[in-house]
Amino acid sequence: MSFSTRIRVRFGDCDPAGLVYYPVIFHYCHVAMEEFFAARCGTPYDRLMRDERLGFPTVNVRAEFFAPLVYGDEAEVEVAVARVGQSSVTFVYEVKRASDRTLCARSTQVHAAMDLDARRAVPVPARYRSILGQD
Amino acid sequence: MSFSTRIRVRFGDCDPAGLVYYPVIFHYCHVAMEEFFAARCGTPYDRLMRDERLGFPTVNVRAEFFAPLVYGDEAEVEVAVARVGQSSVTFVYEVKRASDRTLCARSTQVHAAMDLDARRAVPVPARYRSILGQD
Amino acid sequence: MSFSTRIRVRFGDCDPAGLVYYPVIFHYCHVAMEEFFAARCGTPYDRLMRDERLGFPTVNVRAEFFAPLVYGDEAEVEVAVARVGQSSVTFVYEVKRASDRTLCARSTQVHAAMDLDARRAVPVPARYRSILGQD
Amino acid sequence: MSFSTRIRVRFGDCDPAGLVYYPVIFHYCHVAMEEFFAARCGTPYDRLMRDERLGFPTVNVRAEFFAPLVYGDEAEVEVAVARVGQSSVTFVYEVKRASDRTLCARSTQVHAAMDLDARRAVPVPARYRSILGQD
Repeated sequence: MSFSTRIRVRFGDCDPAGLVYYPVIFHYCHVAMEEFFAARCGTPYDRLMRDERLGFPTVNVRAEFFAPLVYGDEAEVEVAVARVGQSSVTFVYEVKRASDRTLCARSTQVHAAMDLDARRAVPVPARYRSILGQD
Repeated sequence: MSFSTRIRVRFGDCDPAGLVYYPVIFHYCHVAMEEFFAARCGTPYDRLMRDERLGFPTVNVRAEFFAPLVYGDEAEVEVAVARVGQSSVTFVYEVKRASDRTLCARSTQVHAAMDLDARRAVPVPARYRSILGQD
Repeated sequence: MSFSTRIRVRFGDCDPAGLVYYPVIFHYCHVAMEEFFAARCGTPYDRLMRDERLGFPTVNVRAEFFAPLVYGDEAEVEVAVARVGQSSVTFVYEVKRASDRTLCARSTQVHAAMDLDARRAVPVPARYRSILGQD
Repeated sequence: MSFSTRIRVRFGDCDPAGLVYYPVIFHYCHVAMEEFFAARCGTPYDRLMRDERLGFPTVNVRAEFFAPLVYGDEAEVEVAVARVGQSSVTFVYEVKRASDRTLCARSTQVHAAMDLDARRAVPVPARYRSILGQD
């Protein structure tokens, strides 16, 4: 199952070259992950953090940028689960220009399951393992 | 006494028009306030928050923008205390282009003293009242 | 006529105190202005800039912050035209928490009409004067 | 030869978990690259873009995050040239906590040489090839 969300490129996201500043592409991936948790897991990411004191910080990133996004574009970010490990989840993000579905960037990211109070890695809770494993 | 700090304009601070995106000017003011606390009060702002659970969120802003800052500029931000109230401090920020001291923006901001745990306004502690009142 | 748009508060918009970092509130106002131009003027702001070489940079800001927005909130930003001057437009932005319509911030901003090539103020074009004046 | 620059972690760089939001780490890398060009090549990055219409957008990223940076930290970013290709340069960034030199993140990034007017890849100019090759 694929999940996708649309993000409009904002004036403030773009740099003097007229392109989306590349760290902002990673922000778009995080936004898509937040939407993914709300839609697929039934737990918005803010509640995951606040109520369960669980977070999924990014610990490993690979990314390729194929085509620029510019001001006026809308991005479509597809999120797929590549792997559910013992204490991490690997997501693949594909960032496309919504108008013509040009692939602008692809990023594979390992997110560690982290206890936010103890600030250390923990096993992915069974409930999330089950939901994410179906993806 | 005036206090000032220099901030280099970064590529990612600028918008497609080539100018510093105006919300970033307010970020520069906050950076200058952080430097002010470290230099004048002997308490870096992060320790103020962590150890004393005290913050000074902005509750009122006036700002005028006179000239743009562009990529390649260095900003010089002057900070002055305009008023120390019962539970607030008013700072005036002047943002200048460092190379020729052109005044680019001026902002007057009221910062409330806030207990970060209770999330409510508190009196400005005597120690800070004394230091800020000398400015 | 009032115009409003919804903006979900993102993880990356919030600061260590758990609140939306106040410069980001100004970013939300700009996003709402971008949406306003697309919806009301029939010209998305990116085309206004690219095709007509016209921009509306903010030159004067007043803002009051009444209540915090936190991670998990959705903001509703209402935009109203307060005044159409010779070479400027004054917008009033009201930022509310969408769930209970609490007023979190109100900002009045003067935007100068600017020729982006010459980088100087120009009269508000008749077409926009007419549309904005009806608001 | 190694090059390094120091960047103070700002309040607005941090997320509700109290850590530097990971896209901001990539911003720090870009800031370090800007400083690298000014120091090593004698051409500040803004002039490279404006006068020579040359840019080095990031086209490939690998990054690992080992330890968090938190508000109050100062980052030290070391920049090294790993490879100078026909039309690209590969930089390695090591982001350390300045106080104890803990390695917080390492990122290898391929930057394409780009003609900013034509928006296409170009050979790395001989002058920069020579300077970067010595690193």
